[in-house]
Parts: sequence; structure tokens; C-alpha cells
Amino acid sequence: MVPMTTKAPRTPRRTEALSRDVIVKAAVEILDAQGENALTLRALTMHLATGYGAIYHHIADRSDLLAAATDHVIAGTLTGLAADAEPRQALRALALGLFDAIDAHPWVGAQLTREPWRPTLLDLYEAVSQRLRALGVPERALSDSAGVLVNYIFGIAAQNAANARALAGSKTDRATFLAAVAEQWAQLDPARYPSVHRAGTHLREHDDRAQFLAGIDLILAGIQTVNHADKDSSAR
Amino acid sequence: MVPMTTKAPRTPRRTEALSRDVIVKAAVEILDAQGENALTLRALTMHLATGYGAIYHHIADRSDLLAAATDHVIAGTLTGLAADAEPRQALRALALGLFDAIDAHPWVGAQLTREPWRPTLLDLYEAVSQRLRALGVPERALSDSAGVLVNYIFGIAAQNAANARALAGSKTDRATFLAAVAEQWAQLDPARYPSVHRAGTHLREHDDRAQFLAGIDLILAGIQTVNHADKDSSAR
Repeated sequence: MVPMTTKAPRTPRRTEALSRDVIVKAAVEILDAQGENALTLRALTMHLATGYGAIYHHIADRSDLLAAATDHVIAGTLTGLAADAEPRQALRALALGLFDAIDAHPWVGAQLTREPWRPTLLDLYEAVSQRLRALGVPERALSDSAGVLVNYIFGIAAQNAANARALAGSKTDRATFLAAVAEQWAQLDPARYPSVHRAGTHLREHDDRAQFLAGIDLILAGIQTVNHADKDSSAR
Repeated sequence: MVPMTTKAPRTPRRTEALSRDVIVKAAVEILDAQGENALTLRALTMHLATGYGAIYHHIADRSDLLAAATDHVIAGTLTGLAADAEPRQALRALALGLFDAIDAHPWVGAQLTREPWRPTLLDLYEAVSQRLRALGVPERALSDSAGVLVNYIFGIAAQNAANARALAGSKTDRATFLAAVAEQWAQLDPARYPSVHRAGTHLREHDDRAQFLAGIDLILAGIQTVNHADKDSSAR
């Protein structure tokens, strides 16, 4: 049986040299198509029509490969940022770019929380901090403000990864899944669960992405309110 | 070798009936002492000095048991809440209660995102929504506002669970781990990573709990600012 990850008919061993970049992109393709459990060194050798030695020349182990694949996706969201954008818009664009990347590659959500201090995540933390500084957030408040934004994004990422895992292997798509959850919530006792019951009746038209962005806007409003209120003591 | 979870010398099979509650509490003890991978049905029978049949009478499978253990921890944070507390203080207390519970039981962090809509989490969502309503947040903004708070808490939970996994099996404690991260950050190029470099120099005296609470305060400030600004259109 031809494995699903082999896009072309089996070809003879490749003769040109493999680069780390080619290997990482192949890993991303396997992860996207079949999820985290499908990423084995064996799957990778078949996908690339190569041997184990060629892979190990560039990659230490499976954990290194997963981390490099995560870096590849996150780095893609950071390089697309306009350096001269208005800082609040830049932060919204950065957050939405991460949301879309995690939505498209749900295995990234689990990796982000597994190795939270990869170099690419330091780049993310820097990018957020720089925009917050441009927004007028004083130095002493930068760490808390960047922390709340990044942790909120990680929370959503972990959530999306969990939903993707729950859906993996079933034929259920996201809309059907949400409809089933909505049905369940709408049937809850409105006396005990008034808010969830009400949320259930609206969930069918629920837009995860819009709600995510509403959360970013609430946090940015909070950051600006708190720092505006503290303005007198923050002059330096 | 006596397993670590057996606190007393092996005793003869117990004769009194097991309750689901006793089984769930035993599961929490195993999870706390040895982490998620140590929770097997076999470990549970040994811990309780009973047989598989007695366990299966109350528990469907391992996944049911993990979910029930998570519910047990979360429900504990919700029952401690004073019903008549000022809503903003009640929300801070609720958030801190969850932070402390997840810190004490790091396996809970992974479970929260794995099964995000367990009944106990609906209770949590209701508790947050009710306090936000008491704070004057209009109905149409409740879902976004409760969502940002709960997702922030889940983000921290997933983060703590990841840190606990990273530390599990090593002899490193949390303070040593943070000191090592701080050392790494402080050595980063300050030109490329000015914010992370600076954060590294402060990380040794870093208090996760205080930063978590600062994040909750920023989000609550944002919720109040946005809804105050929208006051005219929210009268109903």
C-alpha cells in the first residue's frame, strides 16, 4: 500500500543533497496531512525518498524536527509583518497571523506550550514588546503586558490543538462539531447555566476568529487604560 | 519493589465498598505524586488494594478517570467562592484559585485543554459570566469577555503543565529551572533581544503568580474600559 504522504509514485533514491530546510518542509507537510503521531523518521524517509543517514545528517531526533517545524510556521507569521505599521494595528495583525497559522497547522498549538522558549518564540516576544513600547507602554509594564498577550494567544492555540485532536480520525468537520456543541449547550438547564445556555443558542453563527480578535482588543484596551492611569508615575 | 504510590504496606483486599469518590481521590494522589503517565488501572488497584472489577463498577475507563480527577480539582476551586463578594474581587479570587490549583496539580493544565467542555468547566464559565454581569458587562459582551478571561487562564494552565512536564523526571526544581532560563536570556544579544535580555535579568525575582494576577487585572481593566465606552449603546 502506498503511504498517504507519498505524493508521487515511488522514485529511486534522490541523488541531490538534502538540506535541513527541505526536511523541515516535508515534516510540515506530513504533520498537516496526518497529524503529530504520523511524523516518524520512517514516514520522512519515504516522503523524501531517502535514507535515515541523510536525515540524521541534518536533524538530531524527532523532537528536534517537531521544534524546527514549529519554528518554520511561527517564523512565517513574523516575517510578514510590516515594520512601519501603526503599533496597535501591527499587534492585531501579528495576533491574527498567529491565530490563522495555528488554525491551519493545529499541531503547532501543542508544540508552542511544549517548548515555550524556543528562539522563534523569543522573536515573537520581542516583536510584541517592541510594538507595546511604540504604543507608549512604559518599560516596567512591558513584561506583564507582553505576557498577557502571548499567554492569551497560547491559550487559544492550545484550545485549537485540543479541538483538532478531538476531531482527528473522525469524519466530523469543524462546523458539524460546533453545531453539536451548540445543540448540547442549548439543551442545558437555563436556570443552572443561563450564560452557557444563551451562548449555545448563538454558537452556530459563532466566529472563533472574530471572538479571538475581540479578546485581543479587550487586552489592548486594558493595557492602554492601566498605563494611561499610571502615566504620572511612569515618566522617566 | 514497592511502588511509590503504595503509601502503606500491602494490605489484604479491602472488604468495604469502594465509592467513585474514593477512586477519584486515589487517582488525584497518583497523578500528583507521579504524573499523568503513572495513572494506570493497575496502579489504581494496587493503591486501593482492590481488583479491576471494583474499579470498573464506578469508572468507564482511564479517560473517564482523568476527566473525573480534573473535575474534582476544578470543582474544589469553585465551591470555595464567596457568593456575596464584590464581583471584581470574586473574579480575581476565582482566577487565583484556579492558578493555585493548576500549580499544585500540573496535570490538570493538559486535561483542561483536552476536554474543554466538561460540565465542571461549564460551571466555571457560568461563575465567570455571573460575576461579569454583576460588574455591569452587558449581555452582548458577556461571551467575549468571559472567553478572554477563561482562555487566558487556560493559556497559563497549559504553560504550567508544559513546564511541569519539562521538569518531570529531572531532579531540577522550579527555582533552579527559572534561574537557568534567566541565565540563558541574560546572555542573549541585547541588540537583537532587548526585551527578553532585560526580562532575563529580572527573572530570578520573577513571581509567576503576581504576573498572572497582573494579567487578570489588565483584562478586567480592558473589559470595563470597552464597556464603559460602549455604555450608551448597551442600555437595555
